[in-house]
Amino acid sequence: MNLLILGGTIVTMSSKGVIRDGAIAVEDRHVVDVGKSRELRRKYRRYETIKAEGKVVIPGLISTHHHAAMGLLRGYADDYPLKEWLERWIWPLERCMKGHDIYVGALLTAVESIMGGITTINTMYHYVEGGNEAQGFAEAGLRGIIGHVCFSWRKDEDRRALESLAREWHGKHDGRIRVSVDPHAPYTVDPEYMVELWHIKNDLNERYGSPGNPVIWHIHVAETEDEPEKIRQAFNVPVKGGVVEYLDSLGVLGKDVIAAHCVALNERDITILRDRDVKVSHCPISNLKLASGVSPVPRLLDAGVTVSLGTDGPSSNNASDMFEVMKIAALLHKGVWRNPTLLPAEKVLGMATIEGAKALLWEREIGSIEVGKKADITILNFDKPHLRPLYNELSHLVYAAKASDVETVVINGDIVMENREVKTVNVHRLLEEAEKTKEDLLNRLSQNR
Amino acid sequence: MNLLILGGTIVTMSSKGVIRDGAIAVEDRHVVDVGKSRELRRKYRRYETIKAEGKVVIPGLISTHHHAAMGLLRGYADDYPLKEWLERWIWPLERCMKGHDIYVGALLTAVESIMGGITTINTMYHYVEGGNEAQGFAEAGLRGIIGHVCFSWRKDEDRRALESLAREWHGKHDGRIRVSVDPHAPYTVDPEYMVELWHIKNDLNERYGSPGNPVIWHIHVAETEDEPEKIRQAFNVPVKGGVVEYLDSLGVLGKDVIAAHCVALNERDITILRDRDVKVSHCPISNLKLASGVSPVPRLLDAGVTVSLGTDGPSSNNASDMFEVMKIAALLHKGVWRNPTLLPAEKVLGMATIEGAKALLWEREIGSIEVGKKADITILNFDKPHLRPLYNELSHLVYAAKASDVETVVINGDIVMENREVKTVNVHRLLEEAEKTKEDLLNRLSQNR
Repeated sequence: MNLLILGGTIVTMSSKGVIRDGAIAVEDRHVVDVGKSRELRRKYRRYETIKAEGKVVIPGLISTHHHAAMGLLRGYADDYPLKEWLERWIWPLERCMKGHDIYVGALLTAVESIMGGITTINTMYHYVEGGNEAQGFAEAGLRGIIGHVCFSWRKDEDRRALESLAREWHGKHDGRIRVSVDPHAPYTVDPEYMVELWHIKNDLNERYGSPGNPVIWHIHVAETEDEPEKIRQAFNVPVKGGVVEYLDSLGVLGKDVIAAHCVALNERDITILRDRDVKVSHCPISNLKLASGVSPVPRLLDAGVTVSLGTDGPSSNNASDMFEVMKIAALLHKGVWRNPTLLPAEKVLGMATIEGAKALLWEREIGSIEVGKKADITILNFDKPHLRPLYNELSHLVYAAKASDVETVVINGDIVMENREVKTVNVHRLLEEAEKTKEDLLNRLSQNR
Repeated sequence: MNLLILGGTIVTMSSKGVIRDGAIAVEDRHVVDVGKSRELRRKYRRYETIKAEGKVVIPGLISTHHHAAMGLLRGYADDYPLKEWLERWIWPLERCMKGHDIYVGALLTAVESIMGGITTINTMYHYVEGGNEAQGFAEAGLRGIIGHVCFSWRKDEDRRALESLAREWHGKHDGRIRVSVDPHAPYTVDPEYMVELWHIKNDLNERYGSPGNPVIWHIHVAETEDEPEKIRQAFNVPVKGGVVEYLDSLGVLGKDVIAAHCVALNERDITILRDRDVKVSHCPISNLKLASGVSPVPRLLDAGVTVSLGTDGPSSNNASDMFEVMKIAALLHKGVWRNPTLLPAEKVLGMATIEGAKALLWEREIGSIEVGKKADITILNFDKPHLRPLYNELSHLVYAAKASDVETVVINGDIVMENREVKTVNVHRLLEEAEKTKEDLLNRLSQNR
C-alpha cells in the first residue's frame, strides 16, 4: 500500500532529527521519502493520506525482552517472594499451558502492544507447533523475534522445537517474523548444553538466516546477585568472577547476543559485554517488581555498551507498555545514582527505538524513520490535557505521554491500528476468548492437583 | 442528584471489602447504600442509573502533594541539575506568571486529574486573588485543599494572601474546597516566621474552620539530605539532628501537618513523625526525577506513620496520574530494599485512597465507598487487552490499569466525567487557551530578560 503521513511533528531518531510540519511517504513496505509536508504533499498526492496535523510521529517502539504468552497470566500472582511466586504459582500454572493458551496470550500481548505504539517485540517462550507466539504475532501484524526457551531438563524437546521454529517461521510473514535460540539462563542450562545451543544457533543461521536476517541468541543474564552461586550448585562448575565472564569462558557471547536484565554486573563483566558487543535489554519494571535490584545502566552506557529497553513479560511488569518503561528508566537512574542529568529524554527514546533495533541486529530495517527502512511508525495524539501546552516533544514522549495517546500504528507498511481501532484483530472477541482460555487453564490446574 | 451505580465490582476500601455485582446508591452528595445489585436495583429503581456491569468501581484517588498550577509548565525544562533547573529555568518563568496563568494551569491539572480518576488534590502554590488554583478546581468540580505557599522574603504578601484565601474559599463550593497554610520548606521559612505561620493556621482554623472542616498545614520536609545544612546556612540556627526534629523543636508538628517527601529521615525523625501523628505524602516519581533519593516508606509504615501518595507538580513528575504513582510506589520499594513482598497492591491502593483521606483529615467524608461519606467515585473499564483475563482486581488496579481506563468519575455526587467526556469543562477550548497562555508567558519572559 502507498501511504502519505502528512503534517505531523516527525521525531525521526535519525540524523534528520525532528521535522515540524513533516511528512512521510511509504511505498509498499518501505519509507521512500521523509521531509517537509509542503514538499511531499503534491509529489505523493495520490497516496492514501493519514492526516497527522498536530500529531507527533515516532518510529515504532521496540521491546527487546518479553514473554508475550504470559499476557494470559497477568495478575495471577503478585507480591510473593520469588521462590514462592515461581514454585507455588507460576510454574504449576505454566505446566498446564497448551499451545492454544500460548497463542491466545501472545495475541493479547500483541494487541495490547500495538495499542501502545510498540511495533517490534523480542519474546522468549515455549515454542509448540500446534499453538505458539508466532501465530499470535502474525495474526496481529506485529513484528517480532520468536524464541524457544531451552532448559537442560528437556534437550530433545528443545532441539526439535528449535528446528521446527526456524523452519516454519524465520523470515516469514513478509519478513516480520524472525526467530532466536533462547537458553533460559546460565543456571538452568548446563555448560555443555549452552555450547551445543550456540552451535545450533550458528547452524540454523547458516540454513535459514543471512547477514541481513540473522537468527539471534536471547538469554537472561545476571538478573540477580546469586547467579554465580546458583550455577555452581546446579552444575558443580567453578565460576570465578561474574556471570558474564563465565559465559565468555564458554565462548557463547557475541554481537548476536541479547542479554536480558544485566543487573548484577562487576566491572570485568561490563568490559566483556562491551568487547564482545553483547546487547543489553534493560527491564527496570521487572527488576524492581521481582526485587532483583537496579542495573548499572549509566555505567554500561559510559562503557559504550548498546543498551535497549524491555518490558519483560506481563507476569513481572504487568504491562506491555514501553511508555511506562521509558519513564521508569529515565526516573530510576536519576534517583538511585543521585544525578538528575542521567538518561535524559532523548537518550531514553533512543533506547526504545534505534538502540532497540541495533540490539536485535535489525537496524538496517527498523528503529528510525528513514528512507529505505521498513515503515514501522507510531502516531500520537497530543491534544490532551496532560500534553498541552507543549514545550518539547521529546520530554513529553518520555515523561508525560501514555500508551493510550497512541492513535495510529503502521507496521511493515500496513495500518494495524487507525484512530485506536485495531484493524487486524476483533478485540471484543479476543477478550472473551481470553477469559474462556483462563477458565479452561484454571480448570486443568485444579484437576492436576 | 440521586444516582444508582449498578452492577460493577466495587472495591470499597472499607470493612465491606470487594463486592462483586455490587451497587451504590447516592442521594444528593452522599452515599446512602452500598450492597449487592440485586438488593439495590429495585429499592432505587427511580434513580438515574450508571451501568457498571463488568466495570471496576473504586473510591476517587487522592493526591496529597501537588502544585497544580504547574500544569502550565510541564516539559518546559527537564534533565537539568536541580540548582540549574530552578534558578535558570523554573523560577525565572514563575516570576512572570500572573493569576490567569495559575488558574489555567490548575484547570488543566484538574481536568487531567479527573480524566485519570483523581477526585481530591492537596495543592501548594501562590494564591493570587485575581486568578488562582481554587477557581480552576471549582470550575472543574474537583475536590481539593488549596494552599498558599509562604516564604520568608514575602511575609506581608503571605499574610494577606492567607487571610484572603481562607475567607474566600474555606469550605466553599459545596464543601469541595478547603484551604491550608503552606510554609514552603524549613530552609526557606525562618524559624520565627514558621512559628508565626503555625499561629496563623490556628487562628484561621478558629475563625473559618471546624473540627470536621479544618484548615491544615502543608510543607516540604526532608526532600534532600542537605536540608539541615541549608537551614543552618540560611538562618544561622543550630540544627542538631534531622529536619523533623528541628521542626518539632519549633512546635510546628501535629496531626494536621502533611509533610511532603520525607526522603532524608533518621530513626529519631521517624519516631517523632509517629508520635506527633504527622502525615507523610510520599512522592516517588518526583523524588526520582529530581534525584532526591528514595523515602524509607516501609520503615515509616512499620513505625505506624500514616503514609499517603502524591503526584507532586507537573514539572517534577510530569503527570497528574495516580495510577503511575501507585505502580512506581509498589515497584520502587520492592527493588530498592530487595523484598518483593513490600507494598503489596492492596496496601498501595489504600495509600492512594483511605490513607490519603486520613492524611488530609478528610476521612470522615472521603477515601472509601461507605454509607454516609461523600460520593467521590471512580469507575474503570476493564474490557481492554491489558486488563483481560482478570484474576485479581487489586493487582490490576495497581500494576496494570492506566489513567485512560477511567471511564466515569463522580465527585461530591456530581458526574464530572461520563464515558470519558468531561462534563464540567470544554476541553478543546481549554487546550487552545493553554497554548495561548503559554505563548503569552514566554513573551513576558523574553521581555523581562
